[in-house]
Amino acid sequence: MTARRAEVLSGRAVADAVADRLLARIGELPFTPRLVFVRVGEDPASVYYVRSKQRFAKRVGVDAETMVLPEDVDQATLMRTIAELNADDRTDAVLVQLPLPGHLDAGPVLEAIDPAKDVDGFHPINVGRLWSGGPALAPCTPLGLLAILDHHGLDVHGRHVVIVGRSHMVGKPAAALFLSRHATVTVAHSRTRDLGSVVRAGDVVVAAVGRAGLIDASMVKPGAIVLDVGMTRVGDRIVGDVADDVWGVAGHMTPMPGGTGLVTVAMVLQNTLTAAERRRG
Amino acid sequence: MTARRAEVLSGRAVADAVADRLLARIGELPFTPRLVFVRVGEDPASVYYVRSKQRFAKRVGVDAETMVLPEDVDQATLMRTIAELNADDRTDAVLVQLPLPGHLDAGPVLEAIDPAKDVDGFHPINVGRLWSGGPALAPCTPLGLLAILDHHGLDVHGRHVVIVGRSHMVGKPAAALFLSRHATVTVAHSRTRDLGSVVRAGDVVVAAVGRAGLIDASMVKPGAIVLDVGMTRVGDRIVGDVADDVWGVAGHMTPMPGGTGLVTVAMVLQNTLTAAERRRG
Repeated sequence: MTARRAEVLSGRAVADAVADRLLARIGELPFTPRLVFVRVGEDPASVYYVRSKQRFAKRVGVDAETMVLPEDVDQATLMRTIAELNADDRTDAVLVQLPLPGHLDAGPVLEAIDPAKDVDGFHPINVGRLWSGGPALAPCTPLGLLAILDHHGLDVHGRHVVIVGRSHMVGKPAAALFLSRHATVTVAHSRTRDLGSVVRAGDVVVAAVGRAGLIDASMVKPGAIVLDVGMTRVGDRIVGDVADDVWGVAGHMTPMPGGTGLVTVAMVLQNTLTAAERRRG
Repeated sequence: MTARRAEVLSGRAVADAVADRLLARIGELPFTPRLVFVRVGEDPASVYYVRSKQRFAKRVGVDAETMVLPEDVDQATLMRTIAELNADDRTDAVLVQLPLPGHLDAGPVLEAIDPAKDVDGFHPINVGRLWSGGPALAPCTPLGLLAILDHHGLDVHGRHVVIVGRSHMVGKPAAALFLSRHATVTVAHSRTRDLGSVVRAGDVVVAAVGRAGLIDASMVKPGAIVLDVGMTRVGDRIVGDVADDVWGVAGHMTPMPGGTGLVTVAMVLQNTLTAAERRRG
């Protein structure tokens, strides 16, 4: 067991603080924001994630409902469901839980959600505004990384942030958000040569690949801030992309579990409030 | 004068090759693609750029027209002009030359152009698709950087590309395109600490800031590929972001003038062909 030199960046503490803030703000609204989850089938991970978000919604005073469509639903029915939610004036936010079953095409589904209700921030218009500086809804996991840093008073201005992983949900939008905070940003990935030397340049390291223990102590600059987003099931444990020995090198680090995932959930509700306030003026 | 060790990446050679390819392809079409430039006022740089693009259009067989609006045109008139061009079935491509005079707001103008005709690739939907993997029209300068590398058989797969500058027109879309080519990508900028050590990590360096001679030989890894996008008027010369002494260190380098700018122009016409083919099926 490596000595825990690094300070723990608790996701729970951040999620609790966000919950308190949202509860207070939502309590002052003249309406109750409404969030609808669309879940297709009974994939256990999807059931778990939607339930976590629904529980957090309840906690902060958002009216949340989960629509469950059968595993074999066809694309047209799913698209019609989204069109109805877009048209429903009472609904502020729509989140289609991914991944969808293999016979469904996620691209048109994500493009069908009204960008103003798209609290996952995956609609191309929101992606485009995120990169162009418009009023985007930004993806929740990267938003959560900023919330963790802000909560702990850690500033990335002028620092070098190395993001490992280039997914649409985490790596790429995280790059946009860290650039907007004036960090120097590197995006590394599976094709990167000499990943160790690239990651060692990072004052901040975001690990978002989904390969258990990919980032080890030899790859991390002493004192760096390490944010672990990866999640891999190993036996009956969920482990991150960051190996345990990094606790002995990093300056600050998120635990797994109890780290970035909790804050992602909180950001879904923060985006719901943002969407509701913008939509209802 | 530094010895020119680096191989010259001639923009003219690339633009000529693109012109030949476009001329052949456009000659086989059952229609003539049509491109309309909208220029506001008589800013000399804008006059020069639009004229260059119009000349290239003629060379490859594209029907191009420049609409000139008075310097003091109001936002509503400009927006109406764009709406008319969007609605005109004969027009495949619309390019509003930037920058606009200070009293006009460029954001709504760029969002007003039909994304299918947006050959500058600045509409948020095109930006979003560029980052999300959809059928985008990508910005011309970064597209040109890839064209230069491709023309010379230089592959960035797994290599580290350091982009200096984070503009919406060059730095950010270049990051998206180089990631799609499986490069490791770093975006540095004015707030970057120790720019030299960041740039020295680059197997490829893209300089896109607009500060004459910002990148000098001490900041470049020997043998690196250096692509100079910056342009600053110094007396009666146009100089790039890359200092002359980098010719003694780099492996390949674009000249200035005669480098990336010529290829940007060629890419406007390549995007026009892409837009026309997609639109007319």
